[in-house]
Amino acid sequence: MATKPSIPKGTRDFLPEQSLKRQFIFDTARQVFQSYGYVPIETPAMENLDTLLGKYGEEGDKLIYKILNNGDYLSKASDEKIEARDSQALSVEISDRALRYDLTVPFARFVVQNQNELSFPFKRYQIQPVWRADRPQKGRYREFYQCDVDVIGSNSLLNEAELLCIIDDVFNQLGLGDVTIRINNRKILSGIAESAGLSGYFQEMTVAIDKIDKIGVDGVKQEMIRNGLPEAGVKKALNLIKLKGEPFGTLKMLAGAVTGAEEAYKGMEEVRTLLKALPEAVREKVELDLTLARGLNYYTGAIIEVGHPDFPSSICGGGRYDDLTGIFGLTGMSGVGVSLGADRIYDLMEAKDLFPKSIKASSEVLFVNFGDAEAMQCLKLAADLRSEGISAEVYPDGAKMKKQMKYADDKGVRVVIIVGEEELKNGMTAVKNMASGDQELVAQKELTSFILQTLR
Amino acid sequence: MATKPSIPKGTRDFLPEQSLKRQFIFDTARQVFQSYGYVPIETPAMENLDTLLGKYGEEGDKLIYKILNNGDYLSKASDEKIEARDSQALSVEISDRALRYDLTVPFARFVVQNQNELSFPFKRYQIQPVWRADRPQKGRYREFYQCDVDVIGSNSLLNEAELLCIIDDVFNQLGLGDVTIRINNRKILSGIAESAGLSGYFQEMTVAIDKIDKIGVDGVKQEMIRNGLPEAGVKKALNLIKLKGEPFGTLKMLAGAVTGAEEAYKGMEEVRTLLKALPEAVREKVELDLTLARGLNYYTGAIIEVGHPDFPSSICGGGRYDDLTGIFGLTGMSGVGVSLGADRIYDLMEAKDLFPKSIKASSEVLFVNFGDAEAMQCLKLAADLRSEGISAEVYPDGAKMKKQMKYADDKGVRVVIIVGEEELKNGMTAVKNMASGDQELVAQKELTSFILQTLR
Repeated sequence: MATKPSIPKGTRDFLPEQSLKRQFIFDTARQVFQSYGYVPIETPAMENLDTLLGKYGEEGDKLIYKILNNGDYLSKASDEKIEARDSQALSVEISDRALRYDLTVPFARFVVQNQNELSFPFKRYQIQPVWRADRPQKGRYREFYQCDVDVIGSNSLLNEAELLCIIDDVFNQLGLGDVTIRINNRKILSGIAESAGLSGYFQEMTVAIDKIDKIGVDGVKQEMIRNGLPEAGVKKALNLIKLKGEPFGTLKMLAGAVTGAEEAYKGMEEVRTLLKALPEAVREKVELDLTLARGLNYYTGAIIEVGHPDFPSSICGGGRYDDLTGIFGLTGMSGVGVSLGADRIYDLMEAKDLFPKSIKASSEVLFVNFGDAEAMQCLKLAADLRSEGISAEVYPDGAKMKKQMKYADDKGVRVVIIVGEEELKNGMTAVKNMASGDQELVAQKELTSFILQTLR
Repeated sequence: MATKPSIPKGTRDFLPEQSLKRQFIFDTARQVFQSYGYVPIETPAMENLDTLLGKYGEEGDKLIYKILNNGDYLSKASDEKIEARDSQALSVEISDRALRYDLTVPFARFVVQNQNELSFPFKRYQIQPVWRADRPQKGRYREFYQCDVDVIGSNSLLNEAELLCIIDDVFNQLGLGDVTIRINNRKILSGIAESAGLSGYFQEMTVAIDKIDKIGVDGVKQEMIRNGLPEAGVKKALNLIKLKGEPFGTLKMLAGAVTGAEEAYKGMEEVRTLLKALPEAVREKVELDLTLARGLNYYTGAIIEVGHPDFPSSICGGGRYDDLTGIFGLTGMSGVGVSLGADRIYDLMEAKDLFPKSIKASSEVLFVNFGDAEAMQCLKLAADLRSEGISAEVYPDGAKMKKQMKYADDKGVRVVIIVGEEELKNGMTAVKNMASGDQELVAQKELTSFILQTLR
C-alpha cells in the first residue's frame, strides 16, 4: 500500500500553475469562438464501441481504449473466442463502450442524434479530452485535450474564411500573431493527379505527399514508385506540387500546367474565393502550399494547417469534409472545421514565455496568522478585499512567522499583510510588498483602497 | 451503419445552452475558489487500477469502470481464471487501468506523488468528470462532474470556516442564497456513542443514523436493534441526536447530557470555534444537526451538508478527514473539503429560472447574407462589432430571407442587420431589434455605437 503512487504511462497530472495556463488557452479560444457565434457542446467520454470502430482505419481501431463490461461479462462471451485466446475478437464481446478517440466522430454522431434540436448551419466548438493507446513519446500523450471548432450544414466558403479569421484572432490574443497559415485544396490535388495520369492512385499519392516534411521530395517519389505509381506521372505530379509562393501568382502558374483537369480549376476557384473573403491582415499570413495533403480521407475541399517559426510541427489543422455525418445516416451535410493543438500551443507559449504574469497559482494577498483574535480580524479584512475582486487568504494556523513567509514566497503571493497584537489594538496593518520588499503601515480602514492602488 | 446513433445508458450529450449554463456554474465556483486562494489541479481520467481498488468498499469496487488492456491481453492472463470463467478475478489481470470514481482518492494520490512540488497547507479545487457503473435513474448518471474544494495539511478550524464562507459565496452568486448549511462533528457522534455505551458499534450507528431522512427515527432505531446494538443504548443515543435548534443553545443542552464523554466535549468545542469564526451573514444559515452522520468512514471531525428548501436532497457536502493520504504512505496530513453537486445545482437553478438571461446559445447579432458583395461588407462590419466585444456572425449562404430569419429566431439572436444592394450602395444598414420587432435605418459608420447602445 505504501509504495509510491503513480499514474498510467502517457497520462499527466497538472499542477496548479499548469492548470491555470491551460485554462487561459481554453478561455481565450472559447471567448473568440463565441464572438463569432460558435457555441459549445459536450459529449460523453464513453461512446458505444460500434460508434467508434471502423472510423479510424485498422490501426486506429487498435488504439481505441475499450471499457470492460461490468458484472459477469464472460458469461456472454463466445466460448470459441475464449478457447482460442483471441484477444482482439473477444474484446468486442466483453466491451460495449470505449473512450472517445477524437472529437470529430462524436460530433458527427451528436449532430445526427440531436438534429431536431439544432439550427443549421450549426456552428459548434468542443474542448474535451480524448484517449489513444498510442506509444507515448515526447509531446505525445495517451490522454490529451482537443479543441475543435466546426460549422456543419453549409457549403459556403465564407465558413473557411471565418475559421481562418478565428484562428488568427486566437493566435493574436495568445501572443502568437506571427503564425503562417498554409492552405491547399483537395480538389487541386485531385486535378493534379488527373493531369498526371494518377487518378487511380489518388489516396496513395496524398498519403505519400503528406510525408514530404519528413522524408523530402525524393523520399515521396520513391514511396510512390515503390507503391506501383507510374514514374512519369509521379514526376509530373511532384513538379506541380512544388510550385510555391504568393497565392494568386502560384494559382496562375498552376492553371497553365493542369489544362483540362476540371477538378483542379474548381479547387483553384475555391482558393481564390477564400482568399478574397479574407481581411488583408489575415490574407498576408496565408500561403498556398500544394504539398499540403493531410492524410485524413474525409477531407474533400480546403485543407488548413497553421505553423509557427519557433515550433517544429503544426499547431492547428483542419479542412472541409463533404459527408462526415453520412456514416451515421445523415447525408448531404457539408462541414468544415479546425482543431487547435492545445498541448503544442502550451509548450510553444511556455518556451516563448508568453503567458501573462498575472497567472499565478496563488492568491494576491496573504494575511499572516498571529493567533485567534488577530486572525478573526484578518478574516474580515480579507472578505473586504475579496468584495473588491482581490483574491486573499488568511494563513490558517498560528505557525511561526518564518514558515508563513516561506509559504507566501513559495506561492508567489504579491502582498503580505500583518496584523499583530499591536496592530489589532490600534486598527493598523503592516503591508509588505513582496516584489520590492517595502513595508508600510496602513490603517485597516484604508486597507482595501491601498491594496487596490498597489495591485491594480 | 445507418441505424440511429445513440450513447451509452447513463451518459449525456450537452446541447449548447446546457453546456453554457454548466460552464456558468463552474466559472462562478472557480472564481470564488480563486478569490480565497484555492488553485486548480487536474488528474488523468485513467488511474492505475490498484490506485482505486479497495478505496470505496466492496460495492464501490464493482462500480469502477475498468479499461481493457490493449494488444494481446489474454496472453498474460491466467488460464485457471479463464477456464473458470471468473469474470471478477480475471478483470484485474486484463485491465491495468480504470476510470476515476471520484476526485478524492485521485487527490490523495496526487498530493503524495507531487508533494515536493506543493506548498502546504495546499488549497486546491478540481472540476472534472467521474464515472460509476451505477444503475442509472432520475438524477443519477454514469458520467457526471464533481466540483471539489479541499485544503490539506492544516488542522485549523479556520479552514472549515473558510469553506462555509466559500459555499455561501458560491450559492449567493448563483441566486441560491437561501440555503441551509447543516453541520455536525464526528467527535460529537463518537461521544454520544460513548455515553450511550455504543462505542463498540460506532460504525453501525453512523451508517444507520445516516438513513434518518429516508426511514425516520423509528426505522433507524429498528435497524440498530436488528444489528445487535443494545436497546437501552440505542434509545439514549437517539434521544441525544434529536436535540435541535439554535446551535449554541443546542450545544449547552447536549453538554449536560453527555457528561464524561471526552470526545463529545472536544467535538462541541470544535463546533463552537467554527461558529465563532463565521461572519454573522453565514452563521445565521448554519444549523447544528446531530443526525447528520455521512456514511463515509474517512470523516473524523466536522461534517457539512447544504440543502435548499426547493430541493429534496443535499446540493453540497463534505467534512474533515484526518488521514486521507495515509493510504498512499503519507501520514499526518489532516484535510477538510466539500464537494458541490453540479448536476443538482443545475436542476435547481433551471427549476427556479435562475440562469442569467444573457446565457444564450447564439451570437447577439446576425448579418443577413444578400450575396457575395453585400456579405463581404458585412464581414467587415461584423469584425468591427467583435472588436467592441459584441458577438456577431454573417449568415454564410445567400439563402432565402425567410430561412435566414428563421435561423435568427431559432437561435435567439437579439439584433438582425440587413445590408442589401441599396444599403451597400449608400452606406446604410437596416437594424432589426428581434425583441421589439422595430426596424431602423443606421449608417454603417455609426453601426457599432448604435448596437452598443441597443445591447449594453
